[in-house]
Amino acid sequence: MSIDLNCDMGESFGPWPMGNDAALMQHITSANIACGFHAGDPIIMQKTVRLALEHGVAIGAHPGYPDLQGFGRRNMQLSPDEVYAAVLYQIGALQAIARAEGAPLHHVKPHGALYNAAAKDRALADAIARAVRAAGADLLLYGLSGSALIAAGEAAGLHTCSEVFADRTYQSDGSLTPRTQPGALIEDTGKAVEQALEMVRRQRVKSLDGQWVPLQADTICLHGDGPHAVEFAQALFAVFKREGIEVKVKM
Amino acid sequence: MSIDLNCDMGESFGPWPMGNDAALMQHITSANIACGFHAGDPIIMQKTVRLALEHGVAIGAHPGYPDLQGFGRRNMQLSPDEVYAAVLYQIGALQAIARAEGAPLHHVKPHGALYNAAAKDRALADAIARAVRAAGADLLLYGLSGSALIAAGEAAGLHTCSEVFADRTYQSDGSLTPRTQPGALIEDTGKAVEQALEMVRRQRVKSLDGQWVPLQADTICLHGDGPHAVEFAQALFAVFKREGIEVKVKM
Amino acid sequence: MSIDLNCDMGESFGPWPMGNDAALMQHITSANIACGFHAGDPIIMQKTVRLALEHGVAIGAHPGYPDLQGFGRRNMQLSPDEVYAAVLYQIGALQAIARAEGAPLHHVKPHGALYNAAAKDRALADAIARAVRAAGADLLLYGLSGSALIAAGEAAGLHTCSEVFADRTYQSDGSLTPRTQPGALIEDTGKAVEQALEMVRRQRVKSLDGQWVPLQADTICLHGDGPHAVEFAQALFAVFKREGIEVKVKM
Amino acid sequence: MSIDLNCDMGESFGPWPMGNDAALMQHITSANIACGFHAGDPIIMQKTVRLALEHGVAIGAHPGYPDLQGFGRRNMQLSPDEVYAAVLYQIGALQAIARAEGAPLHHVKPHGALYNAAAKDRALADAIARAVRAAGADLLLYGLSGSALIAAGEAAGLHTCSEVFADRTYQSDGSLTPRTQPGALIEDTGKAVEQALEMVRRQRVKSLDGQWVPLQADTICLHGDGPHAVEFAQALFAVFKREGIEVKVKM
Repeated sequence: MSIDLNCDMGESFGPWPMGNDAALMQHITSANIACGFHAGDPIIMQKTVRLALEHGVAIGAHPGYPDLQGFGRRNMQLSPDEVYAAVLYQIGALQAIARAEGAPLHHVKPHGALYNAAAKDRALADAIARAVRAAGADLLLYGLSGSALIAAGEAAGLHTCSEVFADRTYQSDGSLTPRTQPGALIEDTGKAVEQALEMVRRQRVKSLDGQWVPLQADTICLHGDGPHAVEFAQALFAVFKREGIEVKVKM
Repeated sequence: MSIDLNCDMGESFGPWPMGNDAALMQHITSANIACGFHAGDPIIMQKTVRLALEHGVAIGAHPGYPDLQGFGRRNMQLSPDEVYAAVLYQIGALQAIARAEGAPLHHVKPHGALYNAAAKDRALADAIARAVRAAGADLLLYGLSGSALIAAGEAAGLHTCSEVFADRTYQSDGSLTPRTQPGALIEDTGKAVEQALEMVRRQRVKSLDGQWVPLQADTICLHGDGPHAVEFAQALFAVFKREGIEVKVKM
Repeated sequence: MSIDLNCDMGESFGPWPMGNDAALMQHITSANIACGFHAGDPIIMQKTVRLALEHGVAIGAHPGYPDLQGFGRRNMQLSPDEVYAAVLYQIGALQAIARAEGAPLHHVKPHGALYNAAAKDRALADAIARAVRAAGADLLLYGLSGSALIAAGEAAGLHTCSEVFADRTYQSDGSLTPRTQPGALIEDTGKAVEQALEMVRRQRVKSLDGQWVPLQADTICLHGDGPHAVEFAQALFAVFKREGIEVKVKM
Repeated sequence: MSIDLNCDMGESFGPWPMGNDAALMQHITSANIACGFHAGDPIIMQKTVRLALEHGVAIGAHPGYPDLQGFGRRNMQLSPDEVYAAVLYQIGALQAIARAEGAPLHHVKPHGALYNAAAKDRALADAIARAVRAAGADLLLYGLSGSALIAAGEAAGLHTCSEVFADRTYQSDGSLTPRTQPGALIEDTGKAVEQALEMVRRQRVKSLDGQWVPLQADTICLHGDGPHAVEFAQALFAVFKREGIEVKVKM
């Protein structure tokens, strides 16, 4: 029994730092590195790749919508063809930078509004899966457990990695409770760790209205921008160690 | 005896077309495709790669400064480390898009102000050569004949391709007459063809003040944006054929 | 009886020209000038303001979403507060450039996806109306006849200018037939002129399914990018002259 | 006897905060607000204008080169015409946002590489002065004491405000010691305060090699990004109060 811990990384831009990559990199097994469209720039991508390499963390591309000001979190109506080309462009850019450092690319996880759109819109999801496959047939595609993106990845013959959230609540249909609704976030670390453990051991989560919902937990998403990100990561590690669950990247 | 004809391609952006790629692609052997920083976008890069493939034209990356409004023609004071990362990023982006279409990347030629800076500034030239080498040891580096960029490419162990201009005049030190000076352009097609022929056959050019200047002519740059680009390309082809000079890409 | 003819102008960007502003400027009474977010740049804005001044054409700001590559035609999920600030920013930029040339700003017309969103989404429409009012209480707000934007402008105490389309068909609810549906465009110049005349004289249009739909025709939108834009403008002018309808800007 | 304390403000962008505007705003008399080209965006500009208003701080535009990634600190070869239009655009954008909040614009201070270029290049300086004058004949132009920008402003009939630096050393020709040279920065707060006092009282500074150099001290630039910015501002205020020097904006 094992689990991957992933985190968005390299989300600084130009003179503006973001997150605490150096501290968090010690507590994760895979890093999703921004590729310059919603965050990151070539210099920051290079630094982040090196940091991941130093810590033996698997390197992934984290492509987003071309919207720096909105940080890729504002939905944009791109056609599947535009998404395909934009995702392929971003993966290629990071791939070259990673290869230059001697690091292979391990996975791709879409960012923000693109991630959310691809969870529900199969045409977008297919475009992303095609782009990932074109960039490398051995790349893992990360997506929300049960999402259209995971289905698209499997249909495209990719290995997929189903993502779950320890600190978000779920609806009975398996979707995340929207952040705009009360109870969307689990702010109690103990409860979040408990939810994570249940997800990994039994592949299920208790929804907000009390039902057990099945899901697939290949990787848990850590939020690098929270004030307690490092502590939460340490708590997860400690519990997984106690329970004999190996924390390692999916290959 | 052979010569390569290269041309900048894929310089449209979003809704704005530029150049006549479809017509010119029939008359060149290598295409320098803009990578999104000074022109081009992921969709246009993909279309241009496909067009080059259809015509059997070798595909090259054409990285530039991050300055869409100035079309990469305004000098920008980037450090060598910034240039390295920016060039590697752009090459990687095109590489992925080309690979997705089944096309290997053949060469890299910097664009505009970056090309000019790298002709004289060895530190910038070294940064570019390192980026090209990191992206692929078999990539050819295109640069101005006799420039710091060619020297940097050779020092980095790259195959280089020395570029000459049929429609520009030269100074006695082998540099191009700046466009701001009178007599910089050769507007008479006959004279331009004659200069091209002399360059290819004897690896030399007569400078504005009448001296023979040695140079290396591996590739001739065609300007895609001129009104007579296609006619000029055809005239060059005809003369080279008559003279038994093969027009083909350098490998 | 009078009518205003407006046209989007200044939609070039950096090295990329678009449209035929110089020719069209002779045939319109108000110009909507792009403000750098979806098209245009400071230099082009200045040139376009001068061109409008030379032809006595009223100058308007044409703010759009911050999406150059998509030309402001891709929907983007900006909050009303973001729209307010972005619109105010763009109006202010053009206002300063116009004032420097001695020209007052006459109106504001949102562009593309922002125009369409503001036709239906009252919160967005209110944000735009607030921004226009903040930039100048005497600015006219252009919007689709019958739209939420016109209602928002009136609620904000602005003078509004209701726009109709001569070369687009209408649904029986008064909305434009979407471009994705057959019959959306009126390609026959004679029919388009006839529709324009009916709109101006009787403030109504016959919908695709044959019903008379009331609308308010203060201004007709000419499309600058079509091949026959100038001819169409001339045909409109000729008919309006014959019918004694004055072509002039609404004040 | 009086002195103005100015500070760059509103240098956040999208999701990326920068500086400690809220704390520093209490200790300055004029704020230079980034206008979206090198930092800032419409939302941040609006927030910063409101913050300045709350603290009675005079509002200035802080236009820069169009280079977000480089934060406007990389030199760019813009022509005077391009600089004129870019500066006018940025002033206008802030002007509209400030006017919407009921605040008049007080001054303009170019940012970073543009500030440095305009200190020496009279053609650029003239372009900036023309843009400022076009945006408002009553706007003050801030520039380095003794610079080409101050001369250009005076030639254009503008009121100017000569800027000095308390925490930078000067050369005997009155220029700042470049940051790349040793001794460029005065890190001892006491010495910086002493230099400031000498500048304000006697309009002179002792150069690195021990000579008294005359200058004009209308405003002192505080650096908002340093860790001790607030403490330094407080120390300056205390000394100026003790010495009977009024801290107020120049009108």
